[in-house]
Amino acid sequence: MSVTHPAGFVAAGAAIGLKSTGKPDLALVLNQGPTFDSASVFTSNRCKANPVLWSEQVVKDGVVRAVVLNSGGANCYTGPEGFQTTHQVAERVGELAGIAPGDVVVCSTGLIGLVNDRQTLLDGVAAVHARLSPDGGDAAAEAIMTTDTVSKQVVVTDDAGWSIGGMAKGAGMLAPALATMLVVITTDAVVPAGDLDAALRAATRVTFDRLDSDGCQSTNDTVTVMASGASGVTPTRADFTAALTEVCRSLAVQLLADAEGADHEIAITTVNAASEDDAVEVGRSVARSNLFKAAVFGKDPNWGRVLASVGTTSAAFDPADLDVAMNGVWVCRNSTPAEDPALVDLSERKVSVTIDLKSGDAEATVWTNDLTHAYVHENSAYSS
Amino acid sequence: MSVTHPAGFVAAGAAIGLKSTGKPDLALVLNQGPTFDSASVFTSNRCKANPVLWSEQVVKDGVVRAVVLNSGGANCYTGPEGFQTTHQVAERVGELAGIAPGDVVVCSTGLIGLVNDRQTLLDGVAAVHARLSPDGGDAAAEAIMTTDTVSKQVVVTDDAGWSIGGMAKGAGMLAPALATMLVVITTDAVVPAGDLDAALRAATRVTFDRLDSDGCQSTNDTVTVMASGASGVTPTRADFTAALTEVCRSLAVQLLADAEGADHEIAITTVNAASEDDAVEVGRSVARSNLFKAAVFGKDPNWGRVLASVGTTSAAFDPADLDVAMNGVWVCRNSTPAEDPALVDLSERKVSVTIDLKSGDAEATVWTNDLTHAYVHENSAYSS
Repeated sequence: MSVTHPAGFVAAGAAIGLKSTGKPDLALVLNQGPTFDSASVFTSNRCKANPVLWSEQVVKDGVVRAVVLNSGGANCYTGPEGFQTTHQVAERVGELAGIAPGDVVVCSTGLIGLVNDRQTLLDGVAAVHARLSPDGGDAAAEAIMTTDTVSKQVVVTDDAGWSIGGMAKGAGMLAPALATMLVVITTDAVVPAGDLDAALRAATRVTFDRLDSDGCQSTNDTVTVMASGASGVTPTRADFTAALTEVCRSLAVQLLADAEGADHEIAITTVNAASEDDAVEVGRSVARSNLFKAAVFGKDPNWGRVLASVGTTSAAFDPADLDVAMNGVWVCRNSTPAEDPALVDLSERKVSVTIDLKSGDAEATVWTNDLTHAYVHENSAYSS
Repeated sequence: MSVTHPAGFVAAGAAIGLKSTGKPDLALVLNQGPTFDSASVFTSNRCKANPVLWSEQVVKDGVVRAVVLNSGGANCYTGPEGFQTTHQVAERVGELAGIAPGDVVVCSTGLIGLVNDRQTLLDGVAAVHARLSPDGGDAAAEAIMTTDTVSKQVVVTDDAGWSIGGMAKGAGMLAPALATMLVVITTDAVVPAGDLDAALRAATRVTFDRLDSDGCQSTNDTVTVMASGASGVTPTRADFTAALTEVCRSLAVQLLADAEGADHEIAITTVNAASEDDAVEVGRSVARSNLFKAAVFGKDPNWGRVLASVGTTSAAFDPADLDVAMNGVWVCRNSTPAEDPALVDLSERKVSVTIDLKSGDAEATVWTNDLTHAYVHENSAYSS
């Protein structure tokens, strides 16, 4: 049920003809109130898609009443015509739902540079609006899939009577500061927009922002959270932030597990760093090493490629005194060979890498995938 | 003949038993003078291999009389024992050649974390020293190969009676600021060490430093140039720098052409940038996009992936006003679709991408390769 689990939300998904496969390609999530507080984060890519340019304006007043999302075309680098399409989609949603277009977030995903047929989209908005229902969460989550093989949904409930639901899409281009990731999160808790914003930034900083599947950053990433207040309960900031972080972490892990062509899910944890920033920088550098990622695909515990990546960072450490473990086996101690790499079993899907910088007490985990033949195949055989 | 083409140099290569294949794995290049001026640049990776730590000290006085290079083991993350091995190799070269060990640059390449048998190396030094000859350039170039499929050599001659010869190895880990690249360059021109240094930095800045095959930066990169002065000719700084740049460019192009598993050689030229740094940053961001590189492998002129990379940089540009050409076809104008991408023929090995930032008059070219099944195979099936 995901986004329709919290009270006050209806959703729908439909196949409107954008995807050549005939699969569902338009989703709508509507907040029925009584509150309409919201918060959003967007891609930090400077080349932003038209729906992002639109939605960045929409969210400024902290009020969002609906999110409409299409797959089958990113509406990116499509010029003023593309922006007009986004604008008209928001207006159509507004007309049908009786809300202001300026309260409608628009998200698009699919091929960059592809101009979607505007009339198909506008007709589709009517079709999907007609299907809005308190049971529509699954259909909405399905309609935003692109190369995803499964839909991503999560619900976290609190004993005090409120809950958070979320849905996400994204399989390629997962990278720092969010990447081709569309996420809609709903809650029936009472949370003012300012608190929502603080909670969302805290949650994404340690979840989506630490997911770096292939180092490529999308033009369309959007995460929007809407609070309906329908439960009548006002949680503490700490409780709400914790629950929202759990939602984001679950969705991030689901994205990682379904990343294009991946054979392994790799958690890179940097410990004893001088700062959390150092730990993230080190983790990300390893997550972006094609040589390391290919080695994991080949089940080769190649810690030399780990240290070669660590050495490209500006983090505080002594190059002659680094420890590295893979799946708990300390294959490198003090920057020299230690336990036998043959003890590292990389046959399982989940892999852990631990890098001990011995320079402080901060730590952070960055998640990535391996580099596989299937990744190359998916990204060379098909445009996306 | 490469490094032995200029007068005053002898070289040799031999199979000493480091490589399990029995192929040549030790090379020695000796400057017989009358001058012994030199200049070197090394990897900017902070995790440096033992031979780099040694050689960085050797080159400080501007005098280098010999370079000894082994393949079959990088001697990196091998601790104090590994450093001792490097030291003793330099001492053995010194004893045999009658020169100070402190004038011997040592280079190693191969698997990180592998401890080479010291005695094998020391015995090998004697074997290779016994073969030193004015015709030994080819053998030396062959002995430094790892996953290279061909040796890389070049000679540039000047009508005034001097020449420059060079050899290089490197096929993986080619990345900014040099990467698993060992390069020895010789000249019989008379060039004081300070001028050599200036010329070498100028040459590498626009050649090796702009080669980014797979974004991974090695721990062992070394480029050393030695001047014997044997021609008796002192070229102008401009002439010498131009010739040295030509040597470096030739070797860089040879490295690019032999990069592991590559199907395409991609030249990314950024034009009308506000600064050369901006142009390099933009080119490098595209060179590091796995999605773009996989698309080129799939012969897909996916300019959206180009702009998505450009958008991650801090270069000066208007995101709504970028032009992109592939192989001369302007598939994107003003950040919108322009000429038909179907006109771009990516069947040839060489690919050009031009990005017009419309923000100044600086430009730069960064070279990379595509991301192929063969790259994944080479780097997952074998340790290196």
